[in-house]
Amino acid sequence: MHDAPAPRRNGEALIQVICAGICNTDLEITNGYAAFHGTLGHEFVGRVVESPDGSLQGRRVVGEINAGCGHCKLCVGGDSRHCPERTVLGIKGRDGAFAEFLSLPVRNLIEVPESVSDEAAVFVEPLAAAFNILEQVDINDSHEVALIGDGKLAQLIALVMAQTNCALTIIGKHPDKLKRTLSFCPNSSLIETRAFGQEFKGRFDVAIDATGSPSGLATALEVVKPRGTVVLKSTHHGATPVDTSLVVVNEVRIVGSRCGRFHPAIDLLTSAVAELALLISRRLPLEAGLLAFEEAAASENLKVILRIA
Amino acid sequence: MHDAPAPRRNGEALIQVICAGICNTDLEITNGYAAFHGTLGHEFVGRVVESPDGSLQGRRVVGEINAGCGHCKLCVGGDSRHCPERTVLGIKGRDGAFAEFLSLPVRNLIEVPESVSDEAAVFVEPLAAAFNILEQVDINDSHEVALIGDGKLAQLIALVMAQTNCALTIIGKHPDKLKRTLSFCPNSSLIETRAFGQEFKGRFDVAIDATGSPSGLATALEVVKPRGTVVLKSTHHGATPVDTSLVVVNEVRIVGSRCGRFHPAIDLLTSAVAELALLISRRLPLEAGLLAFEEAAASENLKVILRIA
Repeated sequence: MHDAPAPRRNGEALIQVICAGICNTDLEITNGYAAFHGTLGHEFVGRVVESPDGSLQGRRVVGEINAGCGHCKLCVGGDSRHCPERTVLGIKGRDGAFAEFLSLPVRNLIEVPESVSDEAAVFVEPLAAAFNILEQVDINDSHEVALIGDGKLAQLIALVMAQTNCALTIIGKHPDKLKRTLSFCPNSSLIETRAFGQEFKGRFDVAIDATGSPSGLATALEVVKPRGTVVLKSTHHGATPVDTSLVVVNEVRIVGSRCGRFHPAIDLLTSAVAELALLISRRLPLEAGLLAFEEAAASENLKVILRIA
Repeated sequence: MHDAPAPRRNGEALIQVICAGICNTDLEITNGYAAFHGTLGHEFVGRVVESPDGSLQGRRVVGEINAGCGHCKLCVGGDSRHCPERTVLGIKGRDGAFAEFLSLPVRNLIEVPESVSDEAAVFVEPLAAAFNILEQVDINDSHEVALIGDGKLAQLIALVMAQTNCALTIIGKHPDKLKRTLSFCPNSSLIETRAFGQEFKGRFDVAIDATGSPSGLATALEVVKPRGTVVLKSTHHGATPVDTSLVVVNEVRIVGSRCGRFHPAIDLLTSAVAELALLISRRLPLEAGLLAFEEAAASENLKVILRIA
């Protein structure tokens, strides 16, 4: 396949994709979110086939998905996540990982340690997004934290919360998925959304919406303490009706949270990878991409992996 | 009038109201906000007629509007603003200031210095709410701040922003009111909403919504920088449609902001009261209360004062 027309951009590395994961954001893009037209996919592990200066040639890598201009203040400071000129792999102005090859700047690539399997490496990007919460909000063992959602991202957030020793309560719709979070944060309390009552109102220092749906924010605003913090992880298409007077009267702080740094995620994966296999519902080849999207959208499923090379 | 049936609550002080101001929250309550039934009014200056231990008797006072239980952790710590059992003057479980007398706990009352006029003292409560922004968000001379709104609260926020030496841009709908903000923050830039363009997108470190209407938050989310802060001051009835993906993708922090401490406001009023008269559009007696509400709702007007005693 190396002879195929290569999508390598000028000055960037060409990566042969080994595995890629389907994320809720990919499903939302198919609903119109981000108005993106192109090849989807931003969670991947691959092998560098060509690089402009030969660096990382042949190495197994993951890649930060935000490709900045390289010369603005943010990029020079080493963080392109908010570069105004950025493209984003499979989300904005740049074809993604549901393909045999992709292109990314060499500075976006990080070599994956041998102890991390291909499938575990696919979780680096979403796990980094989960770790990003700790870059933004102080969470420690004195905090009561509510995690709303029991999907793939919520499971990874549970794993990250377990590192903080906070008192975690997970509120979810799906009994099976909810129970699975115990693999990632064994001491958490589980609450089914339908059994969710007044006793949780205004109780939590931090409430994290990882539902991927508009209802998550309303629940978060209900359970968070006055002057507490709501972390918003869900990106979805369309406007969400918000009772903003609740935000004002309770002086809540809402923090939007997107991409994280890869290193803490890779470090965690080198030590705690066993449970991640529990998150994989299906493995399918690229040719079965449409089926893979259907499976990823099914409420009983968690991560669907595309095995490409 | 001292012989009239007194509304003094057990253990509280009875205050004869001298003047009271109509706030946007009062207008919103008449639209259904906060589901409050009772006497409105929470901006006032009055004279203590009776107090349980004789303290402050005969003194001219303003009053913090949140009356806490007095024994929870928050109240014992000296801040009843988020006591879960609180009543709030003219907003929640407690009759307000649009009356000849009102009742408040003695601990809520603060004597007004002689140098502060009755009408200036009516601004203590909303000015404290404006100062509360500085209790929540660091704003200094290195920050570009957008203030959205040109109404009564926005004018007071401009006055508070002037104390920080930030670079302030005020975005408002009403040319006359917008120009008036220069009395409070002479160095600010003024932008009429209809002339508002792309050049302001993602530009400000902090964007403050003081419009009192659902459109303010959308504008704030548009003009704030990635990782910037939106301060939400507007309370209004009903849900606001919010493009939450903007919050997530730009990792914006939204901070709800309500009541502030009275002392910084009183301190400022002892030195800078001259301009406040510019904010008073009408002075009416209590008997003309309905007319006063109509006048307060008219878009060309700012503060309407009820002169009661």
